[in-house]
Amino acid sequence: MPFDKMFESQLQALKDEGNYRYFADLTRRCGQHPRALNHHDGETREITVWCSNDYLGMGQHPDVVEAMASTARECGTGAGGTRNISGTQHQHLELEAELADLHGKEAALVFSSGYVSNWATLSTLGARLPNAVILSDALNHASMIEGIRHARCDKTIWKHNDPADLDAKLSRLPANATKIVAFESVYSMDGDIAPIDEICDVAEKHGALTYLDEVHAVGMYGPRGGGVAEEMGLMDRVTIIEGTLGKAYGTMGGYIAGSAAMCDFVRSFASGFIFTTALPPAIAAAATTSIRHLKVSDIERAQQRRQVARLRARLDAEGIPHERNPSHIIPVMVKDPVKCRMLSDYLMDQFGIYVQPINYPTVPKGTERLRFTPGPRHTVDDIDHLVRALSSLWKQCALARASA
Amino acid sequence: MPFDKMFESQLQALKDEGNYRYFADLTRRCGQHPRALNHHDGETREITVWCSNDYLGMGQHPDVVEAMASTARECGTGAGGTRNISGTQHQHLELEAELADLHGKEAALVFSSGYVSNWATLSTLGARLPNAVILSDALNHASMIEGIRHARCDKTIWKHNDPADLDAKLSRLPANATKIVAFESVYSMDGDIAPIDEICDVAEKHGALTYLDEVHAVGMYGPRGGGVAEEMGLMDRVTIIEGTLGKAYGTMGGYIAGSAAMCDFVRSFASGFIFTTALPPAIAAAATTSIRHLKVSDIERAQQRRQVARLRARLDAEGIPHERNPSHIIPVMVKDPVKCRMLSDYLMDQFGIYVQPINYPTVPKGTERLRFTPGPRHTVDDIDHLVRALSSLWKQCALARASA
Ligand SMILES: Cc1ncc(COP(=O)(O)O)c(C=O)c1O
Ligand SMILES: Cc1ncc(COP(=O)(O)O)c(C=O)c1O
Repeated sequence: MPFDKMFESQLQALKDEGNYRYFADLTRRCGQHPRALNHHDGETREITVWCSNDYLGMGQHPDVVEAMASTARECGTGAGGTRNISGTQHQHLELEAELADLHGKEAALVFSSGYVSNWATLSTLGARLPNAVILSDALNHASMIEGIRHARCDKTIWKHNDPADLDAKLSRLPANATKIVAFESVYSMDGDIAPIDEICDVAEKHGALTYLDEVHAVGMYGPRGGGVAEEMGLMDRVTIIEGTLGKAYGTMGGYIAGSAAMCDFVRSFASGFIFTTALPPAIAAAATTSIRHLKVSDIERAQQRRQVARLRARLDAEGIPHERNPSHIIPVMVKDPVKCRMLSDYLMDQFGIYVQPINYPTVPKGTERLRFTPGPRHTVDDIDHLVRALSSLWKQCALARASA
Repeated sequence: MPFDKMFESQLQALKDEGNYRYFADLTRRCGQHPRALNHHDGETREITVWCSNDYLGMGQHPDVVEAMASTARECGTGAGGTRNISGTQHQHLELEAELADLHGKEAALVFSSGYVSNWATLSTLGARLPNAVILSDALNHASMIEGIRHARCDKTIWKHNDPADLDAKLSRLPANATKIVAFESVYSMDGDIAPIDEICDVAEKHGALTYLDEVHAVGMYGPRGGGVAEEMGLMDRVTIIEGTLGKAYGTMGGYIAGSAAMCDFVRSFASGFIFTTALPPAIAAAATTSIRHLKVSDIERAQQRRQVARLRARLDAEGIPHERNPSHIIPVMVKDPVKCRMLSDYLMDQFGIYVQPINYPTVPKGTERLRFTPGPRHTVDDIDHLVRALSSLWKQCALARASA
């Protein structure tokens, strides 16, 4: 096979630079989160997951599980068609109404995933709005980048989280441009949070549409889980809020929320929305249940904040360097793909702690890291065990401590 | 909102040409397929779905439903991460092994949807293989077209299902090109089937890789549901087989199957695979159950073929014109978007028959149609009722009969 040779040589390059990915083979079990089974070399053992994006454990919440199981029993396992051709189930409409309410918007539109919602929406806006220019934060997620690329409209990258740079770049655009400012609230790999208010100020000054990815915030920020924009009282100033059902809500799928005309527009023109099977009604029902729960329950969020603060304090006490940020994401920088994998392997093998090495292309080369996501179900003992493990590794590997 | 004005004007254009889409709001109920509830104007009534892509009703098969419900109860509702970052569940690996076996390939790789599998795989192959040229059948699905577009490599469109034209176009390519021939087996809107053997002959002659979308064939063709390539004994001659879990298998998700190196390559480099939450384990388990069932059970396929033949014969008897093709898809051409929607509305309102009008952009303008997909659970009475309804409409609307 001449093709296999081509594939293999590119894979070999990945391996040589330490960026080849090995997936952990897990079995999650209801009620055990953040514990899971790890299958490796024919053996199975229980480990503690420290890098899940089921941030609040909602994927195992009894009501959410029951919504999925009972809807599957009542309505079956799939939607049976694209949204247009027999695939729209009542559960989709309920979910969209729930999401519109969550974000205080007229409407919402659900996609197969957060990736598809970003890709499909940005590519459609960029391609179809007259003289569109997308202004993209330098650290935007791959799904936004690919959507912008696919739009083939003009684009400008502005400095990460820098409203002044955005202002300067918006100023240079012609008056007849349709300006679209695309950014995230919580950046998932560094855990820093955008100055949404200042970005909205700048966008409004220039008459730009704002597109905000709240994928790592929905469910976890704001009194009803509406995200950072809700927490900051800014939802009405953001034109389009995008989110996922696959992280804090514990299921799968993505969405946008905004004006009825905007949602109808994307519904009507986005290839990635139109030409694909709709989400299973059981997934939609589970997501709706999860959103409803987190609209009224703050226990999960409060306990998450507590455990995040606890882990940070313990890391500080042990001198394990970690990035400061105002979110629930705790990156410990390693800055080398091989070392990053080695640390991850040690943690798994010696301590039953699972944290995936975050290497290129998820983060730029030279910024490899371990990324911890404490959740409400990590116990104080889990945190102690993790910090002791890291501390012993830091000693074993003679890694630099943070200077106090 | 100046943006809403922009959205609305483009929506108005769609409405003016009769291409604005109205989604039917349905509730499917286990055990009732192809019956479903239709919610409209505050009323709910039972209708018969004639355009489902849950072609065999597997989305309501008790074993498939049970796999989804019990896996949700055991493992929760979501995967909790991307495949790389804690999201690979044992159920994904089982599903991939099942799919590799189904197609007689070394490996398989699962994606969020068939759309994403086409888009991500073709864009990755086209972008990363040296001097790649993608040769795309003129009627390829939107997901393949967008993937090819995203690859930004050279591309050539060859005449639909025309191996001679493919041969001519391959002949013109430079010797050092990496040639990728992308096509489908069953074309979903016309129901015609590609001459896979001749296309493979031509591709082999030119040393081209073949990429075959079997989305509308897997589960339904071939002794084990491996698709048309299985039925024709050609699976080993096709380099990459792509399929969906969302149609005949009744769940959601997409996949590719091929060499281990190819799957590893796409796994390692495709943005649309890497940067998105993995399928829920309950979906993967349901899909695996469905595939396993259709590997050994031929009842569903046999009964589908019977009902397809019956509907065609009855349409012929009544002189309702429909496209001849060797598949399970029966298109009745209307060739006007407004008439197409009108017929669909009449069928729903007067007869409780739901068949979505298929208008642009799903099919080219001027080829608007009703597309019927008889399945094993449509009864003889259902077929009679449908044909009587069409016949009376043809009379009412003075539509042309087929000349005998
Ligand atoms: C910022 C951001 N946006 C979008 C996505 C995609 O969401 P989903 O996993 O639902 O596809 C992700 C991660 O997966 C992300 O980190
Ligand atoms: C030929 C073809 N390929 C791919 C797809 C996409 O598959 P999925 O619905 O799983 O996204 C479809 C329809 O949805 C299709 O008709």
